[in-house]
Amino acid sequence: MASPEAGRKKKMVDTDVVVIGAGISGLCAAKLLHESGLDVRVLEARDRVGGRTFTARDPSYGYVDLGGAYVGPGQDKILRLVKEFDLKLYKMDEEGKTVSYMKGVQRAVTNPNDPSALSNNPLDLLDLNSCFQKLDAFAKQLPPDAPWNAPRAAEWDSMTVKEFMDKECWTSLARKMMGLLTEIFSGSQPEEISFLFYLTSLNSAQGIDTAMSGAQEMKFVGGSMQAKYVISAVPPCLLHGILFEPSLPALKMQMIQRMPMGSMIKTVTYYETAFWKEEGFSGTALSDKGPVNGCMDDTKPDGSHPAIVGFISSTHARELCEMSPEQRKQAVCKHYAEIFQCPEFLHPVNYVELDWSAETFSGGYGANLGPGVLTSYGRELRKPFCQVYFAGTETAVKWSGYMDGAVEAGERAARQVLHAMGKISEDQIWQEEPPSIDFPLTPTEADPLGKILPSIPQLLYFLLAFVVLLVVLAAVLLGVYLS
Amino acid sequence: MASPEAGRKKKMVDTDVVVIGAGISGLCAAKLLHESGLDVRVLEARDRVGGRTFTARDPSYGYVDLGGAYVGPGQDKILRLVKEFDLKLYKMDEEGKTVSYMKGVQRAVTNPNDPSALSNNPLDLLDLNSCFQKLDAFAKQLPPDAPWNAPRAAEWDSMTVKEFMDKECWTSLARKMMGLLTEIFSGSQPEEISFLFYLTSLNSAQGIDTAMSGAQEMKFVGGSMQAKYVISAVPPCLLHGILFEPSLPALKMQMIQRMPMGSMIKTVTYYETAFWKEEGFSGTALSDKGPVNGCMDDTKPDGSHPAIVGFISSTHARELCEMSPEQRKQAVCKHYAEIFQCPEFLHPVNYVELDWSAETFSGGYGANLGPGVLTSYGRELRKPFCQVYFAGTETAVKWSGYMDGAVEAGERAARQVLHAMGKISEDQIWQEEPPSIDFPLTPTEADPLGKILPSIPQLLYFLLAFVVLLVVLAAVLLGVYLS
Repeated sequence: MASPEAGRKKKMVDTDVVVIGAGISGLCAAKLLHESGLDVRVLEARDRVGGRTFTARDPSYGYVDLGGAYVGPGQDKILRLVKEFDLKLYKMDEEGKTVSYMKGVQRAVTNPNDPSALSNNPLDLLDLNSCFQKLDAFAKQLPPDAPWNAPRAAEWDSMTVKEFMDKECWTSLARKMMGLLTEIFSGSQPEEISFLFYLTSLNSAQGIDTAMSGAQEMKFVGGSMQAKYVISAVPPCLLHGILFEPSLPALKMQMIQRMPMGSMIKTVTYYETAFWKEEGFSGTALSDKGPVNGCMDDTKPDGSHPAIVGFISSTHARELCEMSPEQRKQAVCKHYAEIFQCPEFLHPVNYVELDWSAETFSGGYGANLGPGVLTSYGRELRKPFCQVYFAGTETAVKWSGYMDGAVEAGERAARQVLHAMGKISEDQIWQEEPPSIDFPLTPTEADPLGKILPSIPQLLYFLLAFVVLLVVLAAVLLGVYLS
Repeated sequence: MASPEAGRKKKMVDTDVVVIGAGISGLCAAKLLHESGLDVRVLEARDRVGGRTFTARDPSYGYVDLGGAYVGPGQDKILRLVKEFDLKLYKMDEEGKTVSYMKGVQRAVTNPNDPSALSNNPLDLLDLNSCFQKLDAFAKQLPPDAPWNAPRAAEWDSMTVKEFMDKECWTSLARKMMGLLTEIFSGSQPEEISFLFYLTSLNSAQGIDTAMSGAQEMKFVGGSMQAKYVISAVPPCLLHGILFEPSLPALKMQMIQRMPMGSMIKTVTYYETAFWKEEGFSGTALSDKGPVNGCMDDTKPDGSHPAIVGFISSTHARELCEMSPEQRKQAVCKHYAEIFQCPEFLHPVNYVELDWSAETFSGGYGANLGPGVLTSYGRELRKPFCQVYFAGTETAVKWSGYMDGAVEAGERAARQVLHAMGKISEDQIWQEEPPSIDFPLTPTEADPLGKILPSIPQLLYFLLAFVVLLVVLAAVLLGVYLS
C-alpha cells in the first residue's frame, strides 16, 4: 500500500497490475490476480484499508462497524469470502416490539412485518401494497446488466422517484414510506434520484422484500506508477481526482460528474443496559421525524455494549453535519427518547459516529444517479479505457452498492485483466456465483393476498361501477313502478 | 502561469494570493488584486489561458471562438473590460430569414421574433406565450443572491424542468420549444435539471427575453504553493481534483459532486460563399431534429470566411462524441442541407469544432444542477473555506454561466481577499456595476398583448362558461316557450 506521498514522488514501480483503492472491491481484485500468479500493487490514499467499511476499535465499546456492516442471504459472493476467511456472522437480534413513529404517534408491533405498525386505515395499507407491487413488477422488467435497454427505460429515466410517488401514492402514508425508504437506503431525497436508477437498485438487490429485510440480516463478529494494467476500485466521483493521460473519454468524464454520493452519518449510541429490551422493544424503529429516520439494536452478540445504531440521512445529514459531535449526540438521544417514549435514552454512556459525507476518499454510502444519467451514460459504467479497468460496488450488476457488489466488481475487473493478458477466455470474465450453502436465500414469505388486493384507483373504479349499477337498477325499478 | 509539472515539484512560492485557473474569472481576480498592489500568482493546468473561452487561429479561417463568444447589453462588467482593453465588438448579422424546422417542416420568417416561424396554430402560440409569461413571473420571485430563500424554493427545487413542461405545456409546440431552449442553453435534458435552478439561470440573465435575444447580440473582433490567500476560479466539479488539507467541509464537497457540466460540442462550418444570404436566409435556425438544434451565421464582420456556427448539445452531443470529426462534419452539413432545404451546405471548405465535454480542465459550458441541490447546498456556493475564496462564473449572482458572471465572481473573490487583509470594508465587497454607456440595456420590446392573452386552461374555462351560459339560456327560452 502506497501513501499519497509515495505517489507524488513519481517513483517508477514495475508491476503487472496496479489496483487503485484498497476497499473490498480493490482487495478482491488484487487477491484474485495474486492467486493467478501476477505481481499486483494496491494504492490507497487513506492510512487504512477497507474503503467504505470501517471497524473502529476501542476498549470502551470493543468494536463497531461505522461503515458497511450488514450481510444477508443471496449475497453469495461476500458469503463465500466469509467462509474462506473463517469469519463468523451473527444474526441480528430482532426480539421485541418494532416501533414506527409517524405524525407524532408511536405504534409498536411484535411482528416487524405487521402492517398495522404503520397505520390502522386499510386504505393506507392497500395503497402501500399496490405501490410496492408496482415497484417490484417494474424492477423485474429491467435487464440486470443493462437497465438502460428496458422497454420503458427512457420514460423511467426522465422522471424522479418523487414523480412516481406523486402519481402512484394516493395516501400520505404511502408517500411517507416511499420517501423514508429512499432517504434511508440512498441518503438522498426522492426528487434527487432517477426512477430508473431506483428500480435498478431494487432489482440489483433482488426485489423490494429482500432489500428491505434480508439485506440487513447478519453482521460480522470481531469487527505515479508504471504497470501493464490498472484497476480503479474507487467510487466514481473520485476518478475526478486522478489525472489521466490521455484524458478519459468525454462520456466517461461526464458520467463521473453525474454520480454524486449520498449524505449519510452513521451513529452508534451506547447505554449501560439494553433497557429497551426490558420494555419490550427490539430497538428497531422507523420515524418520519428527523434526525434519525431508521435505527436498530447494535448490542454485541454476547449481550455486551448495549447500543442503538441510527442513520442520519439525506437532508437531516446536511442539516446536522455542521453541528459538533456532542450536539449531534444530544439530538439523537432526544430523538430516541421521543420516538420510544422512554426518557432513559437521554443518558448514553458512549457515542461513536462517522459522517461519511465528509470523507474525502469515499463519501457515503453509494453513488446516486439523477434523471437521464443511466440512459445516457450507463453503458460507460464497466467500459475499460486503455489498460484501465473499473471496479467498485457501483459497477456491480448484482447487489450494487453493497459489500457483495464490491466483491463481484473487483473479481470481474481482475478477470478482465486476465482476459486481456490472454490467460482466460472472454466467456470466463463473468462467473455465476454458486448459492451459499450456509445461508441460502429462501423466498420471502410473500403475502399471497398482496398480489390480488386492489389499488386505490381500482377501488374507486369499483365503487363508481357499483354506484352506476345502483342507479340503473333504481331507474329500472322506477320504470316498473310507473308502468 | 505554472505548468502542472511545476505544481508537482512542490516548490514553495511566497506570494500574497494564489489564483487557481486562468479563465476570465481567475484573471479578473488577479488583475484586481495586482492593481491593489498585491503579489499574485495564477495557476493554470492547461498550456493556454482563457478557460471556457478559446479563440483558435489559423490562416484558413482567420480566428474563431470555439468557446464563449457572445456579449449583450446588460452585461456591464464584461462591457467595462471591453472598453478598458479597447476591444472591438461587432453586431451579429441577422439579416435574412430565420428558419425553424419542426416535425420536418421548414418555416422561414424575416422578423426573427415573428411567432409564425414556429406555428400557424394560434393555440400553439397562446400556450407558448403563457408558459413564457409564467416562467418570467416565477423567475422574478427569486432573490438573485439567494434563490433558495424564495417562498416556493422547496417546491420548485423538488421538480425537474420536464415536470413544469408536463404540467404547464398543453401543446406539443410549447413542450418542444421549452425542451429545445433547455438543451441549447444548458446542454442538458429538461429532466436532468431542477426547475429552481432553471428559474435562477433565467433570473440571473435578466429574464427570458433578454436571455433569448440580447445575450447573443455581439461578438469580439480579433478573437503546491505557499500563499496567504487562495482564489479558486475553476468550475466547481474540478475542485474534486484538488486535495485540500484540511479537507473541504462535507457540504462543500457534496455540492461539487452535484454540479455536473453540460454536454456541448461547438462546431463552425466554413463555405466558399455565404450562399444562404443570397437565398434570403440569415443563417439562424432552430430545429427539433438533431444533431444541431440551434445554429447561426458566423461570417467575419468584413464578410470574410463565410461560416455557420452550430451547437450539438445534450443527448446529441453524447451520441456524436464518439464519432470522428469527419463523421460529425458530414452529419452537421447533412443537417444544414435538410433544414435550409439547400444542398450547397453539403460542400464545406473547412470545419472546426471543439467538444467541450471532453475537456478535462473545464467541461462545457456550465454546471447544471439537478433537483434538490440549490436548496440543500446553494448557501455553500460563495462560502470561503479557511483562506480559500471561490470565484468562477457558477458563483456569480448576475449573468451566472456567462463571461460577465465570470468577471463579477473573480472581482468579488478578489475583494473578499482584500477585505480579509483589512484593506477594504465588508460593504465594499459587492459593488454595483454602472450600466454600460456604449451598450445600454434597452427594455426588450415586450409584446403588450403577451401579458393579457389567456393561457390554454383559461381559454378552456372560458369556453366551458360560455357553453353553460348557452345551456341556461336555452332552458330559460324553453320555459318561456312552454308557458
